[in-house]
Amino acid sequence: MSILAVGSVAFDTIRTPFGEAKDIVGGSLTYFALAASQFTDVNLVAVVGEDFSEKHMAVFANKRIDLQGLQRAPGKTFRWGGEYSYNLNDRETLFTELNVFESFQPKLPPSYRQADIVFLGNMHPSLQLSVLEQVESKRLVGMDSMNLWIETTPSELREVLRHVDILKIDDSEARQLADEYNLRKAAAKIHAMGPKTLVATRGSHGSMLIADDELFVAPAYPLEDEQDPTGAGDSFAGGFFGYLAQQASLDNGVLRQAMIFGNAMGSLCVEDFGTKRLQRLTHDEILDRYRSLKRLTHFEDL
Amino acid sequence: MSILAVGSVAFDTIRTPFGEAKDIVGGSLTYFALAASQFTDVNLVAVVGEDFSEKHMAVFANKRIDLQGLQRAPGKTFRWGGEYSYNLNDRETLFTELNVFESFQPKLPPSYRQADIVFLGNMHPSLQLSVLEQVESKRLVGMDSMNLWIETTPSELREVLRHVDILKIDDSEARQLADEYNLRKAAAKIHAMGPKTLVATRGSHGSMLIADDELFVAPAYPLEDEQDPTGAGDSFAGGFFGYLAQQASLDNGVLRQAMIFGNAMGSLCVEDFGTKRLQRLTHDEILDRYRSLKRLTHFEDL
Repeated sequence: MSILAVGSVAFDTIRTPFGEAKDIVGGSLTYFALAASQFTDVNLVAVVGEDFSEKHMAVFANKRIDLQGLQRAPGKTFRWGGEYSYNLNDRETLFTELNVFESFQPKLPPSYRQADIVFLGNMHPSLQLSVLEQVESKRLVGMDSMNLWIETTPSELREVLRHVDILKIDDSEARQLADEYNLRKAAAKIHAMGPKTLVATRGSHGSMLIADDELFVAPAYPLEDEQDPTGAGDSFAGGFFGYLAQQASLDNGVLRQAMIFGNAMGSLCVEDFGTKRLQRLTHDEILDRYRSLKRLTHFEDL
Repeated sequence: MSILAVGSVAFDTIRTPFGEAKDIVGGSLTYFALAASQFTDVNLVAVVGEDFSEKHMAVFANKRIDLQGLQRAPGKTFRWGGEYSYNLNDRETLFTELNVFESFQPKLPPSYRQADIVFLGNMHPSLQLSVLEQVESKRLVGMDSMNLWIETTPSELREVLRHVDILKIDDSEARQLADEYNLRKAAAKIHAMGPKTLVATRGSHGSMLIADDELFVAPAYPLEDEQDPTGAGDSFAGGFFGYLAQQASLDNGVLRQAMIFGNAMGSLCVEDFGTKRLQRLTHDEILDRYRSLKRLTHFEDL
């Protein structure tokens, strides 16, 4: 079982109250792939520029990540810069330079076209659609998006959503997409758009899964030391879909465990700058965090 | 087992996007007492004015609430008005008229002085202290407070905290009290002030219990229809301490169950305006909400 994942690889410049980093390898797909590869094989589709050297490629080395689908294009790699407030809850984007990502045309190597799980990372919905058109068979389609596409390309977004099984977005974006503040009512509207399951992430408050026959709330792990929230939501998605890719059946009990692995990966990611924590992560550390989340939330039934 | 509870009884004027109410019986102690009386006997200490009629007293009728400690003073009852934003998450105080609450001197009837649990509701710390001085024996002291007392009477507040076992406050107030954003670090500082257990409520995100040897996170029940959040935190406290008052032992497992009963009472409270939902609540409905919270959060261990 494997994941076909498409999205952005970038150079990130990050400032938090605890430090800063310039031009480190990031992008939402990088975090997703590093997290998911702890559970399954990841077939990665993305684009980088000529400035993305062998040294930068090391971020993907010795992982279960296939790079046949990583295109190299003339020009510079996508760059993003952001700065976090003192409590890490608010983020200001300092700059966004799309560079080679602007003319990105995802192209699936033949071996990627029989996919188990397809994950459409946060990018222009027409690119997400073009990936789906190249897929010959799949078990499940997952998707991420953001306020930019909800606001600027609503009809293309709706077209993609028709083909999506599980939508993973921030709770604020779920509310915006559905034009409804109450998350359960928003989920019902989103179900009607296509995705039968909504996974809404809520930053330091955890995440919620809402389907017609399921409602599950997973609190975030309350860390004592957070360094950098960049990539936490993408790491959540990687843990969630990565765990699902391993499973023969996708019943509600499995989806709940996937949510906890998602929360585990998100909380581990923020313990260090950029992708550092994900890169040195062991599978035992992930299992430990899962068990901590169990202890954190368990109470006796009546 | 019983609770001695002191705090404010008031006339509330409330506006939410779903309706409004003028001069209905409220005040934090009213919500606390109605919620706690579902579990245990409540000995209530508060003051009302001459405008608090027999009709208004009906809010406490046929409940396990003893009113010997409810003083009637010359003048008008404490009045408060508030208006909620469209998503119910932000509240603006429209007016606060302390009236008879301004010169309130809590006086414990002799039968109240042997208490099981003492709950010091949100009010001036010197009044909280005077209640403690009148108590001859007790098993546990719980307390609520707010930003006003943290800012205006910090030394009196610190004096009360030295005698408190469990402090229940909003997470934002816990951060303010400890001058520390991270809740676990804030809890450690608050433990050093006296309360060995911090219960931090987080509005629609649930609540967290932090002690030296315990960390428990309880998500809020995601309602589809919320009417009025007034009194949700006080109802939480009533459910939490009310359940504890019933229990012979206060081990961590019992504290976790108390948190869930607190969340249950808070979520039930907001389903209707003012105290309406609490007044018509059955114990079976509370047990149903508890079981719903169990289903909502359960996942299999590894």
